[in-house]
Amino acid sequence: MTKDLSTDVAIVGAGPVGLFAVFECGMLRMKTVLIDVLTAAGGQCTALYPEKPIYDIPAHPMISASALIAGLERQIAPFAPPRLLGRRACRLEGAAGDFRLVTDRDETVRAKAVILAAGAGAFGPNRPPLSGLAAFEATGAVQYYVASRESLRGRSVVIAGGGDSAADWALALADVAAELSLVHRREKFRAAPETSARLAALAASGQLRLVTPFQLSGLRGRGGRLEAVEVSRLGSDETRVLPAEVLLAFFGLATDLGPIASWGLALERHQIVVDPGTLETSRPGVFAIGDVASHRGKLKLILQGFSEAAMAAHAIHPIVFPGQALHFEYSTSTGVPALAPA
Amino acid sequence: MTKDLSTDVAIVGAGPVGLFAVFECGMLRMKTVLIDVLTAAGGQCTALYPEKPIYDIPAHPMISASALIAGLERQIAPFAPPRLLGRRACRLEGAAGDFRLVTDRDETVRAKAVILAAGAGAFGPNRPPLSGLAAFEATGAVQYYVASRESLRGRSVVIAGGGDSAADWALALADVAAELSLVHRREKFRAAPETSARLAALAASGQLRLVTPFQLSGLRGRGGRLEAVEVSRLGSDETRVLPAEVLLAFFGLATDLGPIASWGLALERHQIVVDPGTLETSRPGVFAIGDVASHRGKLKLILQGFSEAAMAAHAIHPIVFPGQALHFEYSTSTGVPALAPA
Repeated sequence: MTKDLSTDVAIVGAGPVGLFAVFECGMLRMKTVLIDVLTAAGGQCTALYPEKPIYDIPAHPMISASALIAGLERQIAPFAPPRLLGRRACRLEGAAGDFRLVTDRDETVRAKAVILAAGAGAFGPNRPPLSGLAAFEATGAVQYYVASRESLRGRSVVIAGGGDSAADWALALADVAAELSLVHRREKFRAAPETSARLAALAASGQLRLVTPFQLSGLRGRGGRLEAVEVSRLGSDETRVLPAEVLLAFFGLATDLGPIASWGLALERHQIVVDPGTLETSRPGVFAIGDVASHRGKLKLILQGFSEAAMAAHAIHPIVFPGQALHFEYSTSTGVPALAPA
Repeated sequence: MTKDLSTDVAIVGAGPVGLFAVFECGMLRMKTVLIDVLTAAGGQCTALYPEKPIYDIPAHPMISASALIAGLERQIAPFAPPRLLGRRACRLEGAAGDFRLVTDRDETVRAKAVILAAGAGAFGPNRPPLSGLAAFEATGAVQYYVASRESLRGRSVVIAGGGDSAADWALALADVAAELSLVHRREKFRAAPETSARLAALAASGQLRLVTPFQLSGLRGRGGRLEAVEVSRLGSDETRVLPAEVLLAFFGLATDLGPIASWGLALERHQIVVDPGTLETSRPGVFAIGDVASHRGKLKLILQGFSEAAMAAHAIHPIVFPGQALHFEYSTSTGVPALAPA
């Protein structure tokens, strides 16, 4: 299906920062279209850690990633932007005031400005090189993120990895899983000292089997039903077989800016260089906010991305409404303006 | 009482942005002390518009100013900073790593860095030059902000002013007050076109008496009990007497940076010039965030102040913990660290 849309601002990335950009543009009466390679909005919050608590969103002492996205969805509901999900933004033609953004399904979005809120880019898990892996992935026997802790209750689980995700999930699943092993190729975990101490305590009490320094070497089972995970000690012939109905593999994310990397934007270590006062990239009319943007003082915090969304929207206003002064207004005075549908 | 405190970061201003700076410093294990000229935390949110809805705080589609402050208070509760309220920050001696901030009660706060989150500075309402005003202020017959809409139910109210506050409160009180007049010295209001149209509609339906172009000329009543407000038509001798138990005067805020203006910080139109990447002022170790700060791309939005609080805390970390690398961590991984009391 080819579907051509015309809007004020095309927003690439429907994670929390992209969603909030819809709101900030909407408050300035600019229409938006959302584009994301994932098939659901929310970015990593939805796809990777929906149940994780976040503590540093202002006036939310604790909010799960999925509740954050739900709150943002309610906030942008008045603006109801058209969404092109499951699409990659492939090409960008034209210039400020008249861009044509083409997706991998050959849809064209005409827009006066573009906001890239692409996070770490199109992302996916790093997969372990094990034979027969795909069949176990298909049944959910091998998982790269935990959509629901409850789904693992009473099951035998092997966690592989040495970073925060592996350590945090080992702690979170210790009193849920019937049997729990944590495999890491080094003796030490890349986790906060408290976390490592808690892992050691769980191991001492028998709730967790710490398997270090070992790495994954094979999967046992058939028809997508996992029975055990084979692991090998580094630097020796020793192997062990760990009972496992589910393997959680946390080897980080392979991220990829994808086609955006070829749009002629100035880049710096896989991030897009922006003017910190406007969030404009080296290509006029194209803005980048959130984790994909790079400037002095950049922190990869959702909160900073939210602020950048407000700044970019204000900087874009003269492109969408040339010659029209923007009278700065507080939301307390204006409320949320009604928009005609895009 | 003289009370000397020692802390990592002295935060001047306990409005929303100052409160969130406590949180961001706390997340980096830096202790804080809060200082504010008002006797309650929350700044203008608490003192001027506690019931006003705010729409642009992320993942809060609508939150009242008082609920915003309550949420921030819950968020910073784990850090429980000492508070010096009802105090002006008067003098700043010393240098980065060893400041001594002295209040108007001669208390000294020793701090390694200072964050100025002073908003519009110490602020107060512009008061109309009417004889006998103080007696009516003392009884609440003349008010400069509305602490509670319900307290005005069934009363005769005169609103004076031509800006957003006057117009918004006229709309909000039309079906609450027994009798309502809106006095402005010009024919037109400085309000959004929709708001002006709604005022005109209320006037047409008899729910609101629009009194323009008039200005306040006197107060009638005795013992602090207001009976009527006298107004005079501009450029003529015509006067009118409006029945009034309560006068709401919205003539804006007189703001004043106060002693901070003499701390030798580079200023620009009553705002403090900062480096946008660090929020540091021209005086090393002194940072400014929120409405008091000036940089290219500055928006006077609470949201941007929140982001600046995070940036300033990260920039301050090497002053408080020299030589100690700051490993960037997400709140989802670390949770909220426990701090020893200041």
